[in-house]
Amino acid sequence: MYKICVIEGDGIGKEVVPATLEVLKATGLDFEFVHGEAGDEVFKRRGIALPEETVEIAKECDAVLFGAAGETAADVIVKLRKILDTYANVRPVKSYRGIKCLKDNIDYVIVRENTEGLYKGIEAEVAEGVYTATRVITEKACRRIFKFAFDLARRRKREGKRGKVTCAHKANVLKLTDGVFKRIFYEVAEEYPDIEAEDYYIDAMNMYIITKPETFDVVVTSNLFGDILSDGAAGTVGGLGMAPSANIGDRYGLFEPVHGSAPDIAGKGIANPTATILTGVLMLRYLGEDEVANRVEKALEEVLEKGLTTPDLGGSLTTFEMAQEVVKRLKEE
Amino acid sequence: MYKICVIEGDGIGKEVVPATLEVLKATGLDFEFVHGEAGDEVFKRRGIALPEETVEIAKECDAVLFGAAGETAADVIVKLRKILDTYANVRPVKSYRGIKCLKDNIDYVIVRENTEGLYKGIEAEVAEGVYTATRVITEKACRRIFKFAFDLARRRKREGKRGKVTCAHKANVLKLTDGVFKRIFYEVAEEYPDIEAEDYYIDAMNMYIITKPETFDVVVTSNLFGDILSDGAAGTVGGLGMAPSANIGDRYGLFEPVHGSAPDIAGKGIANPTATILTGVLMLRYLGEDEVANRVEKALEEVLEKGLTTPDLGGSLTTFEMAQEVVKRLKEE
Ligand SMILES: CC(C)[C@H](C(=O)O)[C@@H](O)C(=O)O
Ligand SMILES: CC(C)[C@H](C(=O)O)[C@@H](O)C(=O)O
Repeated sequence: MYKICVIEGDGIGKEVVPATLEVLKATGLDFEFVHGEAGDEVFKRRGIALPEETVEIAKECDAVLFGAAGETAADVIVKLRKILDTYANVRPVKSYRGIKCLKDNIDYVIVRENTEGLYKGIEAEVAEGVYTATRVITEKACRRIFKFAFDLARRRKREGKRGKVTCAHKANVLKLTDGVFKRIFYEVAEEYPDIEAEDYYIDAMNMYIITKPETFDVVVTSNLFGDILSDGAAGTVGGLGMAPSANIGDRYGLFEPVHGSAPDIAGKGIANPTATILTGVLMLRYLGEDEVANRVEKALEEVLEKGLTTPDLGGSLTTFEMAQEVVKRLKEE
Repeated sequence: MYKICVIEGDGIGKEVVPATLEVLKATGLDFEFVHGEAGDEVFKRRGIALPEETVEIAKECDAVLFGAAGETAADVIVKLRKILDTYANVRPVKSYRGIKCLKDNIDYVIVRENTEGLYKGIEAEVAEGVYTATRVITEKACRRIFKFAFDLARRRKREGKRGKVTCAHKANVLKLTDGVFKRIFYEVAEEYPDIEAEDYYIDAMNMYIITKPETFDVVVTSNLFGDILSDGAAGTVGGLGMAPSANIGDRYGLFEPVHGSAPDIAGKGIANPTATILTGVLMLRYLGEDEVANRVEKALEEVLEKGLTTPDLGGSLTTFEMAQEVVKRLKEE
C-alpha cells in the first residue's frame, strides 16, 4: 500500500488532481490518499498558505501529489521543496503523437537544481532605491545535482536513449558562481565516462531548445535558469498543459504539474489533465512501479493520439471525461 | 558625414562587418569608418581585450558598429556597454518572408536593461565552497528603461503597430528586487495612458514567445532575463543569424548582431550577414536616417524572399555575395 499526500491547492488544481486520482485508482495498485491543504484559499481562511499539518502529512507519506497554488504559489511550493529537501526538479520534455510540437522526436529531461541560486530569498534594500538579491551556489549542491543528472542519463541509456548530459550556465558573465558550476560539472562527468557531457551558455541553450531540441537527452542547470528554460521547453511540446514535474530528494518525492492554478479557466471543467496524469506517471516510477507507470503512459498516449482531449488540445472533452478515457483503457487491459 | 567606430572583433565578425560596410557605403550616405580592435586576438597579442584607444575612438564617433568577440566577449561587450552607459539593449524580433519562422506575423522588440542585474559582476566566495553573485536593481535604472520602452511603443504605435509594453519579471520569487521592478513599471505606465501595459512572469514569458509571439509589441525586462529571452526569441524567427541589436544610451549608440564569433564556421565565408545588416539598419535609424534605413531593410527583405542567401538560410551564396545582392538593389533604385 502506498500512502500519498494529496494537495489539490487552488483553481484547476481542484480539477486535474481528482481526475488524476481516478487514473491512479484504476491502476489496481493499493493507494491511501491523505489530503492536505495549501494555497490561496487556506491563506484567506487561516492566514497561512502552507499549514504545519500539511507539512507533517507530506513527511509521513510515500510521496506528495501537488496540484497548483495561486498568488501564494511561491510560499507554498518553493517552501515545500526546501522543507522536503527535494534538490532535483525533474521536468521531462517529450513530444506525444497527436500534439502539435515543434518537432516530433523531442525526448529529453530538464534537471533543475531546486534548493539554491536566486531562490534563496536573500534580498535587501542596501541604499535608498538600491536593492539586491543574492544568488548562492555551493559546491555541495552542484555535485549532488550533477550526480543526479548523470545517473539519470545512465538509466536512460539503458532504456536505449542517448546517454548525454548538457549543462547550461552563464560562466562568461557569472565567472565565479557559474565558473564553479561548470567546473564541477566536468569533474562529475569524469566519473561517468560512458555518458557524453557538453555545456552551453543558458542564452544559447534557450535557443537550442527551439532549433535543435531533438539533440538533447538530460539537461542540467541552476534553479532560476531551469525555471525559465522549462517553460520555454513546454512551449515546444504543446504548452504547460503537457508538462509534468517531479521534485526528488534523498528522502522525499514531491510531484506537481508545471502549470499554475489558471484562474481564467478554473471551475469550468476544461483544464487539461495531461500534465498531472504524467506527473502521476513520474510518481509511479519514483515508487518503483515502472511497469504500471508505462501502462498509464501508454493509455494516455492512445487517448492523446485519438484526440480524446480537452479543448486546448483540440478535443471537446471535459477534464474528467479525458481522464475517464485513460481509466477505461487501464481497466480494459 | 557620419563617423562610425568599426570593431570587427573575432571570427565571423571579420566577415559580416565588412559585408555590412559595403551595404552602408551603397546607401549614398557619407561615412567615415574608423577601425578599432577588440577581442581574443588583441588579447593574445597585447594582454588586453578592449584597448583604451578603442574606447577613445568609440567615444569620438557618432556610433559604434561591433561584430563579435570570442572567449573575451564578456570582457569586451559588457564592458563597452557599461563605459558608454548604453542602458537600453534593443532587440527586434521579426519574421521575414522567406525565412522559416514559428509564425509569419511576429514583430516585436525586446528592450533589455543593460547596466545592472547580475551583470554587475559582484561575486565572492563567502565560505569554503560557498559562492555568491549579487543581483542589483535600482529604481533609477528601472524608471529609465521603462520610459525608454514606453517611448518606443509610442513611436511604434505612430507607425501603425500595436502600442503595448509587456514587462517580464519574477516578482513571485524575487519579491523585493522584482517587486520594485514591477511596481515602477506600472508607475511609468501611468504616464502613458495611450499605451497598453501588461506583465508576465519571465518563465511564462519564455513560453509565450513560442506559443503567442504575435501578441507582443515591446517587451521589457531586466538584464539577464533579456539575454536569455532574446536568444529564444531569435530561435523563433530563424536563429541568431537573423538577430540584430542596438545598445542605446543618452550619449552613445553601440550596434552589434546578437550572435557570437562562431569559430566553427569562421573563415569559410559562409556566415549569414543578415543580423549585422539589420544591425546597420538600427544604426541608421539611430542616426536619424529613417528613410535610408527603410530602403536598406526593403532591399534585404527582397534578397531574403528570393532566397539569395547563405547556406544556413537554405541558399548557396557567400557572405559577401549575399551582401552584394543588397548593394545591387540599393544602387538600382
Ligand atoms: C510558482 C513558482 C514559484 C514556481 C517556480 O518559480 O519554481 C513555478 O514557476 C515553477 O516552475 O514550478
Ligand atoms: C557575450 C555575452 C557576454 C553577451 C551577454 O551576455 O550579454 C551575449 O550573450 C549577448 O546577448 O549580447
